[in-house]
Amino acid sequence: MGLKSFVDVSADSHFPLENIPFGVFRPKTAGGDDHSLVVETPRPGVAIGDFVLDLSVISSAGLFDGPFLKKSQCFNQPSLNLFLEMGRPTWKEARATIQKLLSADEPSLRDNLSLRKKSLLPMNDVEMLLPVVIGDYTDFFCSMYHTKNCGLIFRGPEDPILPNWFHLPVAYHGRASSVVISGTKITRPRGQGHPIGSSPPYFGPTKKLDFELEMAAIVGPGNKLGKNIDINEAYDHIFGLVLLNDWSARDIQAWEYVPLGPFLGKSFGTTISPWIVTLEALEPFACDPPKQVRIKPAGQEQASVITKSNFKHLYWTITQQLAHHTINGCNLRSGDLLGTGTISGPEQDSLGCLLEITWNGKNKLSLNGSSQTFLEDGDEVIITGCCEGGDYKIGFGTCAGKVLPAITENQ
Amino acid sequence: MGLKSFVDVSADSHFPLENIPFGVFRPKTAGGDDHSLVVETPRPGVAIGDFVLDLSVISSAGLFDGPFLKKSQCFNQPSLNLFLEMGRPTWKEARATIQKLLSADEPSLRDNLSLRKKSLLPMNDVEMLLPVVIGDYTDFFCSMYHTKNCGLIFRGPEDPILPNWFHLPVAYHGRASSVVISGTKITRPRGQGHPIGSSPPYFGPTKKLDFELEMAAIVGPGNKLGKNIDINEAYDHIFGLVLLNDWSARDIQAWEYVPLGPFLGKSFGTTISPWIVTLEALEPFACDPPKQVRIKPAGQEQASVITKSNFKHLYWTITQQLAHHTINGCNLRSGDLLGTGTISGPEQDSLGCLLEITWNGKNKLSLNGSSQTFLEDGDEVIITGCCEGGDYKIGFGTCAGKVLPAITENQ
Repeated sequence: MGLKSFVDVSADSHFPLENIPFGVFRPKTAGGDDHSLVVETPRPGVAIGDFVLDLSVISSAGLFDGPFLKKSQCFNQPSLNLFLEMGRPTWKEARATIQKLLSADEPSLRDNLSLRKKSLLPMNDVEMLLPVVIGDYTDFFCSMYHTKNCGLIFRGPEDPILPNWFHLPVAYHGRASSVVISGTKITRPRGQGHPIGSSPPYFGPTKKLDFELEMAAIVGPGNKLGKNIDINEAYDHIFGLVLLNDWSARDIQAWEYVPLGPFLGKSFGTTISPWIVTLEALEPFACDPPKQVRIKPAGQEQASVITKSNFKHLYWTITQQLAHHTINGCNLRSGDLLGTGTISGPEQDSLGCLLEITWNGKNKLSLNGSSQTFLEDGDEVIITGCCEGGDYKIGFGTCAGKVLPAITENQ
Repeated sequence: MGLKSFVDVSADSHFPLENIPFGVFRPKTAGGDDHSLVVETPRPGVAIGDFVLDLSVISSAGLFDGPFLKKSQCFNQPSLNLFLEMGRPTWKEARATIQKLLSADEPSLRDNLSLRKKSLLPMNDVEMLLPVVIGDYTDFFCSMYHTKNCGLIFRGPEDPILPNWFHLPVAYHGRASSVVISGTKITRPRGQGHPIGSSPPYFGPTKKLDFELEMAAIVGPGNKLGKNIDINEAYDHIFGLVLLNDWSARDIQAWEYVPLGPFLGKSFGTTISPWIVTLEALEPFACDPPKQVRIKPAGQEQASVITKSNFKHLYWTITQQLAHHTINGCNLRSGDLLGTGTISGPEQDSLGCLLEITWNGKNKLSLNGSSQTFLEDGDEVIITGCCEGGDYKIGFGTCAGKVLPAITENQ
């Protein structure tokens, strides 16, 4: 029997009282159209069922009365960075306070109707924003199945997994500016594609637009430049996890990536889910969150599930990733985003991107009767994931994005 | 005959009235020790001779009276980002106003002794800080000589320059958090080095610590995600240039860089010079700023010049770099840093890093009588650069950093 909240939470909700994921939102203004003059300030919140609890209101009402949060302004900020910097004891205090406030037998919020009205907003009435200011975004390459498949496709059957891969978690720096929140539309990128045969490289909208199913850790307290974070302390530097779609243009990537790695084939957009699920909420599930990707093809109402994968398919753990990242003295900052890399499993229906699923466009993908290889304009990619245990789920919500056509010269 | 300021500027100064480079500084507090209680706020300034003009004081005194700056708070900020975002018309207005205020025949500052005392500070009395908040740092690979030498060293004589290189400016995302200002000490990084022969990879302090002589463009106004910046408009999105030392650990880099590019071999520190020299100041020199690197070996008083290179050795220009960076819709933000990559020339004494100068440690470097291959603990690397024309110089000042020993397990 799970914990009971006075807020109604359906049995299949991603956000029961056991979860309490953190995000940043803005109430939609009256009328809800783009011409509205009042733009509300972004502020932190947590999800409970189909509602968002406004932490700035709870904080201003003096309900965070523990030693770490009593005098803190961390919930009167437009991002979670300050809260994340404060570390695990503060996070635990916040979680305990919020779980108590929302529980069925605690009257302080339940019976205060004006405060409830002010602090509990239907999810449909808010706009979710990036939860953190992301100083740097790093993307790892930690699924062995994905690594092997990419090696086979890009370099051929000889040594598909390079010798360094088993010795260290391979990673590259990603682009922080183009990380966007779920729901943001992604414009098909243009660029130079890999030459086909002896032709010169072509230029134009990518012909191989792909998603990548990933998760990402959000960094809590950082470290000073020149000092590393020990593997035994790495856990305390990770606040929680989100879903991540590392959109990729495979023809651009294949041409540009030697010798310095992916650049424009990735930097046109990276989507994350809005709710950061804390490691505390995930603890009872050890390492078992399955995830799935659906594609809703352009012009269709129904989305098809095209792959199901699992976090357990990572060879290198997120604490190993974080410790490795700092071993050279590189400084992490609160809010930094560490992507796991595409999470592929061993079976055909657990591959984490279209490059693998279609084997670089050789095999077609069937979607509600139609078929295609890479993403088409108008397609919507929807990633969801949750941990399922006994009588409740810990869910990540969704990480979604729709493909817009490439811009043309006249735009 | 150059422009004449009422501030004394020596003939060999990097900072005559024609230059007016922008930076951010903090007055050193009385006593100047670390125990001082008063920490002054960072604020924008420009360099003139051996002085810094405090733009926050000039702005508060109402001396920026042009249409763009009259009501702006851009000089009452701890970084230049807001000013950079305002674009070239504002930059031109600022430059014209400052050049007029500092000129020998303009009385408004010259004859106002209390304002002069408040606004003109000896350079020795200020601490220079990072001039911008760097959202993303990108490093290009634009010198053909450097590219060819790296290819020969890392991959051998077959195709040292890969086929994509002549078609697009190859680049990778760097680490923004570890960009530091000139003078910051750099701790020797630890990591896994490339295996030698059939041995397993070793772990420890890098044995191949290197500098890289680069320049970097600082982005002015950015672009929206999904829209590109046309090559014909790229110039207006670049505010100016700094010197950059992209410290590199060659043994770590050689092992980790396939297939995703350099990561920990670079992310432990990148040093930039504090003064951003504007494109306006550089215009009379078209493309000719020579640069040199000196190394002051540990324990020695004298620094030796070890290489002289030139900005003209870039195959791809900075406007081509910027236009390429955004062609896929990637958004740049004001303050972004675009490194040129190591600038090597064709001769042995114009190579831009020790990897090339010593041919990966095979040849020794002679420094004031002693000899070494890569950087030793205690060595200080000092990069300087200036444009020399008729009767004045446009200088970049220095980009310097000293190597600290690696941390040990007990630290």
